[in-house]
Amino acid sequence: MAESVESLRQRVEELEQELARERSRQVVGGRTRIEKMSSEVVDSNPYSRLMALKRMGIVSDYEKIRTYAVAIVGVGGVGSVTAEMLTRCGIGKLLLFDYDKVELANMNRLFFQPHQAGLSKVQAAEHTLRSINPDVLFEVHNYNITTVEHFEHFMHRISNGGLEEGKPVDLVLSCVDNFEARMAINTACNELGQTWMESGVSENAVSGHIQLMIPGESACFACAPPLVVASNIDEKTLKREGVCAASLPTTMGVVAGILVQNVLKFLLNFGTVSFYLGYNAMQDFFPTMFMKPNPQCDDRNCRKQQEEYKKRAATLPTPEAAPQEEEEIVHEDNEWGIELVSEVSEEELKNSSGPIPALPEGITVAYTIPKKQEDSVSEVVVDDSGESLEDLMAKMKNM
Amino acid sequence: MAESVESLRQRVEELEQELARERSRQVVGGRTRIEKMSSEVVDSNPYSRLMALKRMGIVSDYEKIRTYAVAIVGVGGVGSVTAEMLTRCGIGKLLLFDYDKVELANMNRLFFQPHQAGLSKVQAAEHTLRSINPDVLFEVHNYNITTVEHFEHFMHRISNGGLEEGKPVDLVLSCVDNFEARMAINTACNELGQTWMESGVSENAVSGHIQLMIPGESACFACAPPLVVASNIDEKTLKREGVCAASLPTTMGVVAGILVQNVLKFLLNFGTVSFYLGYNAMQDFFPTMFMKPNPQCDDRNCRKQQEEYKKRAATLPTPEAAPQEEEEIVHEDNEWGIELVSEVSEEELKNSSGPIPALPEGITVAYTIPKKQEDSVSEVVVDDSGESLEDLMAKMKNM
Repeated sequence: MAESVESLRQRVEELEQELARERSRQVVGGRTRIEKMSSEVVDSNPYSRLMALKRMGIVSDYEKIRTYAVAIVGVGGVGSVTAEMLTRCGIGKLLLFDYDKVELANMNRLFFQPHQAGLSKVQAAEHTLRSINPDVLFEVHNYNITTVEHFEHFMHRISNGGLEEGKPVDLVLSCVDNFEARMAINTACNELGQTWMESGVSENAVSGHIQLMIPGESACFACAPPLVVASNIDEKTLKREGVCAASLPTTMGVVAGILVQNVLKFLLNFGTVSFYLGYNAMQDFFPTMFMKPNPQCDDRNCRKQQEEYKKRAATLPTPEAAPQEEEEIVHEDNEWGIELVSEVSEEELKNSSGPIPALPEGITVAYTIPKKQEDSVSEVVVDDSGESLEDLMAKMKNM
Repeated sequence: MAESVESLRQRVEELEQELARERSRQVVGGRTRIEKMSSEVVDSNPYSRLMALKRMGIVSDYEKIRTYAVAIVGVGGVGSVTAEMLTRCGIGKLLLFDYDKVELANMNRLFFQPHQAGLSKVQAAEHTLRSINPDVLFEVHNYNITTVEHFEHFMHRISNGGLEEGKPVDLVLSCVDNFEARMAINTACNELGQTWMESGVSENAVSGHIQLMIPGESACFACAPPLVVASNIDEKTLKREGVCAASLPTTMGVVAGILVQNVLKFLLNFGTVSFYLGYNAMQDFFPTMFMKPNPQCDDRNCRKQQEEYKKRAATLPTPEAAPQEEEEIVHEDNEWGIELVSEVSEEELKNSSGPIPALPEGITVAYTIPKKQEDSVSEVVVDDSGESLEDLMAKMKNM
């Protein structure tokens, strides 16, 4: 019985993808596929301005972008623009996961258009993206990754949906808008040892962040509890009450831009890859930092990855063991290993942050914790008394 | 004779706009116009997430956005995304100026799609933008503002093309890719006392900037000569030689995002409006600064505006005379009034910049100077000897 449900679901998925492929063939006036990226400077070459990155001395092997597969979870205000940027850059394969429909209420952000209202986000996105760049391979999944069965399928696709079927994807990008989905991605990536990047935009629309998670090497999403619990109701609850979060195409565009820039730097090996980059739109302030993993992390697989990373770091020759070492001068004065590599002093950070005592605006207000057993979490009031980060962390941990 | 050419040109323009309006009516499944912005939280309301900025305490009167007209010069990688963001935000009116055609070579940036190749950028943009938000008024001009006759028409539209015909626009945005067009906008805005914002992306695609110019109050584009003259050939020349500038959808998306964010903050009166914000993608470094106007500026109208600003500042009560005063703590130790309000010290800036001695990467390499009478300008070699900003400025000035 369970098997037939599973096989039916697979068939539906196959048909959906077949249908999407059919539809994409009907795009009027799209362009034909290009077998090999060329540097030729002619108006008809969609890759000339990208291949020029080689001539400019920025990227040594731009064509390599075609060998990578990236999974994007959440195709909303940040995820859709992220997908479009990677598509235009000529990424090898994109896997899109979302279960939402396009609504007119999404029109204040880039990408989707009014005539797509009512379509599933992944289908509408695939259709547009294919017409923009038919060289990219697409695999879309119209489901919620946080349900048990879909979570398993999600894990399976992350491990096998690479450019070559059976190989893992190269990177997972979290562009979701809630705590539960972030935790699901975190759990999957810790188990698989899968490198991923997280992104978020605050409910007041004027701050956001991106964060790189390398299991065992940098803090995972469960390592550090959210410093500020803005409210204990999730977006759906808010909606039902006639209230909704604010959003802006500017903030979401900037966050997608710094996310994909970090992806390009990571995959194509240029510039400095950021472990954390925040964006405070009110002050035009962009904090950076690095967080060590928490040895007491609640996620068993995170602790396991930490042990394995230590072993690898000990046996490998120095340059490979700690490639980012020069940026990882970890401050030992707080047990969480939170270190600010930003250009500002901690004193300045304290002054610049509003309701958060020791970290700049935009670091943790990007999501809300849904109402669960610990109702008291919603009662936490973070005051401006200037208590230290350690005190705060200890308080949160002991609740 | 001159009159009949002028009337014919006007007729062509009228017909083009009529045609564009006709085409926009044919959009399948667009949405109908909305007379009044509503805060109602329903899936069918495209403004719910923007009006939520009021509830979140960010903007006091979001609806006011409908009363503003913004002119965008250059509808390329930055300008097109800028136009889309403002359209989705529900701006009152957009005036677009460009004379280029969409090419497949533009497909590595957001906005235009392959099926639009061959269309004029302003027409293609208007068509897409109208289908995204039919509430916005559009006025498009398919010409090069740097020719004498078009420059006059451009000046006329800036002074008269506001939301109410006959009134000036509220803001001009420069999203062009060359020195000549920037100088034309600068000349027009100095003469008209028109506030504008400039944007740019470097030829190696990994840095960019935005800058706010208030005639008489902050430095104009002619006040400070470009510190670094990257080369003396413009993009067209480069193209002919089989070479082209690199570009990335990420960098251009970030620059458009910080530009429109600055526009929203300026028009809707929230947060801190930046006079200069740079973006160095290699290091994720975002310098900010403020430049006083140069009392010896070559532009007569800039000097005139400076005198008028001084008079206004002297007669008006303090709060209105210098609204940004708390951020304008001008360093008097260089005659150019270049002051870094960034979080980094000047020493750190010197160390972080590559070939530019005293300013961070991304400030002045955004454009190149076309070959003119001063051929020697192209010979300037900026070395790393650590000479001061003043020395460098003096050298450039005396050439």
